[in-house]
Amino acid sequence: MTKTPLLDTVNFPADIKGFSREQIKQLADEVRTEVIDAVSVTGGHLGAGLGVVELTVAIHAVFDTPDDKLIWDVGHQCYPHKVLTGRRERMRTIRKGGGLSGFTKRAESEYDPFGAAHSSTSISAGMGFATARDLDGRHNHIISVIGDGSITAGMAYEAMNNAGATDSRQIVILNDNDMSIAPPVGAMSHLLSRTVSSGGYQALRGAAKSMVKGAPRPIKSTAKKAEEYTRGMFTGGTWFEELGFFYVGPVDGHDLDALIPVLENVKKMKDGPVLVHVVTQKGKGYAPAENSADKYHGVSKFNVVTGEQSKSVANAPSYTKVFAESLISEARKDDKIVGITAAMPGGTGMKEFGQVFPERMFDVGIAEQHAVTFAAGLAADGYKPFCAIYSTFLQRGYDQVVHDVAIQNLPVRFAMDRAGLVGADGPTHAGAFDISFMGCLPNMVLMAAADENDLARMVATAVARDDGPTAFRYARGEATGAGIEPNPQPLEIGKGRVLREGSSIAIFSYGTRLGEALIAAEKLDQLGLSTTVADARFAKPLDTELLCRLADEHEVVITIEEGSVGGFGAFCLHALADAGRLDAGVKIRTMTLPDTFIDQDSPELMYKQAKLDADSIVEKVFEVIGRNVADMQGLA
Amino acid sequence: MTKTPLLDTVNFPADIKGFSREQIKQLADEVRTEVIDAVSVTGGHLGAGLGVVELTVAIHAVFDTPDDKLIWDVGHQCYPHKVLTGRRERMRTIRKGGGLSGFTKRAESEYDPFGAAHSSTSISAGMGFATARDLDGRHNHIISVIGDGSITAGMAYEAMNNAGATDSRQIVILNDNDMSIAPPVGAMSHLLSRTVSSGGYQALRGAAKSMVKGAPRPIKSTAKKAEEYTRGMFTGGTWFEELGFFYVGPVDGHDLDALIPVLENVKKMKDGPVLVHVVTQKGKGYAPAENSADKYHGVSKFNVVTGEQSKSVANAPSYTKVFAESLISEARKDDKIVGITAAMPGGTGMKEFGQVFPERMFDVGIAEQHAVTFAAGLAADGYKPFCAIYSTFLQRGYDQVVHDVAIQNLPVRFAMDRAGLVGADGPTHAGAFDISFMGCLPNMVLMAAADENDLARMVATAVARDDGPTAFRYARGEATGAGIEPNPQPLEIGKGRVLREGSSIAIFSYGTRLGEALIAAEKLDQLGLSTTVADARFAKPLDTELLCRLADEHEVVITIEEGSVGGFGAFCLHALADAGRLDAGVKIRTMTLPDTFIDQDSPELMYKQAKLDADSIVEKVFEVIGRNVADMQGLA
Repeated sequence: MTKTPLLDTVNFPADIKGFSREQIKQLADEVRTEVIDAVSVTGGHLGAGLGVVELTVAIHAVFDTPDDKLIWDVGHQCYPHKVLTGRRERMRTIRKGGGLSGFTKRAESEYDPFGAAHSSTSISAGMGFATARDLDGRHNHIISVIGDGSITAGMAYEAMNNAGATDSRQIVILNDNDMSIAPPVGAMSHLLSRTVSSGGYQALRGAAKSMVKGAPRPIKSTAKKAEEYTRGMFTGGTWFEELGFFYVGPVDGHDLDALIPVLENVKKMKDGPVLVHVVTQKGKGYAPAENSADKYHGVSKFNVVTGEQSKSVANAPSYTKVFAESLISEARKDDKIVGITAAMPGGTGMKEFGQVFPERMFDVGIAEQHAVTFAAGLAADGYKPFCAIYSTFLQRGYDQVVHDVAIQNLPVRFAMDRAGLVGADGPTHAGAFDISFMGCLPNMVLMAAADENDLARMVATAVARDDGPTAFRYARGEATGAGIEPNPQPLEIGKGRVLREGSSIAIFSYGTRLGEALIAAEKLDQLGLSTTVADARFAKPLDTELLCRLADEHEVVITIEEGSVGGFGAFCLHALADAGRLDAGVKIRTMTLPDTFIDQDSPELMYKQAKLDADSIVEKVFEVIGRNVADMQGLA
Repeated sequence: MTKTPLLDTVNFPADIKGFSREQIKQLADEVRTEVIDAVSVTGGHLGAGLGVVELTVAIHAVFDTPDDKLIWDVGHQCYPHKVLTGRRERMRTIRKGGGLSGFTKRAESEYDPFGAAHSSTSISAGMGFATARDLDGRHNHIISVIGDGSITAGMAYEAMNNAGATDSRQIVILNDNDMSIAPPVGAMSHLLSRTVSSGGYQALRGAAKSMVKGAPRPIKSTAKKAEEYTRGMFTGGTWFEELGFFYVGPVDGHDLDALIPVLENVKKMKDGPVLVHVVTQKGKGYAPAENSADKYHGVSKFNVVTGEQSKSVANAPSYTKVFAESLISEARKDDKIVGITAAMPGGTGMKEFGQVFPERMFDVGIAEQHAVTFAAGLAADGYKPFCAIYSTFLQRGYDQVVHDVAIQNLPVRFAMDRAGLVGADGPTHAGAFDISFMGCLPNMVLMAAADENDLARMVATAVARDDGPTAFRYARGEATGAGIEPNPQPLEIGKGRVLREGSSIAIFSYGTRLGEALIAAEKLDQLGLSTTVADARFAKPLDTELLCRLADEHEVVITIEEGSVGGFGAFCLHALADAGRLDAGVKIRTMTLPDTFIDQDSPELMYKQAKLDADSIVEKVFEVIGRNVADMQGLA
């Protein structure tokens, strides 16, 4: 018998309330199909959402959102949640300009009480909501759903440590979809410290470790998991209990007959934080995702029947790939080079590095703070660590950059990927601030690559500079196609380059806006404005000599960068002021990212909106010299 | 029988090697006396060092520093270590200009392999050293000593979680000198999840919690401690074991007969990370410290016999006190105001706030990341959180400021104490970068208080601004003595003030350099240069109208701030460039902190070195107008 479709009757979670258990199960199936269909058209995050379909439906069935606050950690698993909370119609706009965000977002729905995108924030935010509720004397529930990866970050631990010491009612759902939470290989207990420290037990421990170590990977992982669950069953999740949480689990996250009663029980609990350990399978219910190594974590458009993803044609290697290959090439010549990633081996190119140098690549987990200081320790003992962290995530290790690296002047190298605007991932993933927050630090050398050859040379420069910290930024996506010269040589520190010489207008570019600067220069030349384009290469130390020459020899100077105010343009202005070059006047304008967070869109439209494209450069020049766009069009 | 003094024969740890156990004990007593004597003369951190005298001597007796790497977390407990590692002669220069740092410091001694000052970095750094050793095939030991406070921070957890998954040999000594590590009140175990989630156990748990809750504080603390130790004895430190550490302890940290054999055992262990749980008493062995509530954590000069500390005479209340009293005053009128501190209730004034509003003050522990997002959660649910974090420590929560507060435009208020130079604590504690790293963020309103009245008004301004985040910075130490008007009113957002009007020179000040600007103005006036002084109050949004007027009506404009490049001065230059005001020339100079980390000294000398004092302002003006200092002196 064909069932009547239910999802069409559900616009908001309140519509689920009368549903029978069987109807809820059917609804879950329909939500899964809906998410697969939508993402097959839009691309986006799929595997994480499929893994929490039943969990999402169960939470909305048991709790009363939006009065009860449901906070998804990271948020890339929120597609089923969006389908159930008034956004089904807009699912096919996800991650597109003007469309739904790929993450939870406060501005989008009252069912998103706290936005996300970076990991491990949900327990802290949940504790804020719980505290506000307690102070108000309200009685709503707070539910944070966090993955087994996210919960390993220091921030989540800080939140649990704090929440566990309170009586405040807060529910944390641990969505355990892949790996064990802690690495308890060889864990032991029930021994007095004196026995334990005296050697005999050490041998036993070593034996246990090597036994697990020797096993092939799948068995090892299963064995660890089994060990953990066995212990969890008998001890009630000691680790969480010791942090003051009431532990419930593990629960099968795809079995609504298990999940719903547990959540109903948890809902009745009176005080203190509760952790519900739910085991799910990433990509669940869609065979191509289940069978894929990455469980279709992030996908492009795909064929629903075959699962085949459409491939975009690449014109040039990605900057990430160029970075990885350059580092591998340098590391073949210098065995002190090591690579570090904070749980992003694929995204940063550290995976490739680790395939060539497995002993010299370190994935430290979602742990940017630790990653940076770990690198500082390596540098302090003579190594040349390359810390490959996206610009936006380096914000998580900022104090460590200041306190452990810059103050001690240790030669840690920061490879800042995804610098600038990033397209579909939107404002949370943009690398907008690194020029400012790194450029203000004494001892730091700061570079930006405008093409793949320069990126290769910047890797070589960072290897060569061993007497202090070096950071270099590069963009998300494809390089320019410029190619890479054989045996890239280190750059001269603090020296820019001139790409084309003109006599009237000077564009001083830092990083990947160079291509647009060159296009703008062509246009300006055609309009009778002879234009010089220079690439600063370094924001710190700045090529002040070149900058002063540009100011001296041109009517107008434009600086351009894919970063906020207080960065490269500001350093240029500081330098000109210091040199007294502003005293007699310089027609200078700084083009930076605007003072706003830019929502996701196609990169082209984002640059247009940010006014960092070639046309905007031309407009800016005309604005300075007092002509208007109509003049420009008349001339063109 | 009088014993022959031993400390005179010990210049370096190698000199201890032949010592008998009795001699080691005697040496420890002498080190303690030496530290007390030294700090009685210099002031500085005392209680922490006294607590680790035996531990320090034992580590140096058992291990072979500096080949073995000894890394002290935070570092304020390192005075005994400095006495034993070639720095005894210089102990009376500690925290003084040109003298020893109050923390560990790489530049100071090879026995300080990794410097510290901020907390919770030692395990990460230690893992870096351990990894470098393993890659090199060396066999030296790595010992990180971390307090029970420091180990609760997310960063330490990230490091343990990573270290615990490796076979790398690394020793972590947990110096447990006060409180329990985790707050396991009501912790339970040995229950299956189904039983546990079904209500019966909840009642039991509630009863246990309220029993402990009802107890007076000392009993509660002792009971918790006892519970923990009991469990630790029987389980072998489950919590650490689950993180993959081999747990040894607890050991009496003042009993060298217990400590030395344990360390010798630990030294023999072959692989993997080990945690040695050592229990010590802060202030140990010096009665006035032992009997003091804060165990003489940080002291001024004192009388060794009586313990009486010399008191400095205050001319004005501290900015911290002004902040606390202003916030209390506002909170009496607005019950949505709550206060948050990350383990610094005393330093930030949150202690006073909490005494008046115990339900509305939250000390979240050493957890700046969590503190910021917890505040964001409170703000998202209608509260007005004031997050009081030192400028330097806010670096720890930077990503949370960007991702959870600024992007979501949530009205979290950041009270950034200790902004600018901080004297004896040196470069690690300076608040040098906040104008840059906060000023580049969209949605942020950024203020700096030049005197106590403005600080009070900025607190009122932050209360009133409920549609986005607000941050305000203020200096360490005494306010100006300006007094505070009754019922301080909110400032107009983005508006500065003019303190004195002149016609030739304009000084545009942001924050506490205003006093020096006024002194400089007097001098300049006397030298025939009529000087305007304005206080920007806001770095963001900037009072562009005022700035342009200053530029229009004066020959020279000087901006001054106690912050790095890329901050207030940079924003002024950006604004002038945008407004086209640089086209025809402005004689403008930006006075910022120099591009270097400034070692500790008296505040006056630090400002002189940083060239941010009145004389430096006058010199700068003369430099711009082409007169020299000799001219100036001739005129004066």
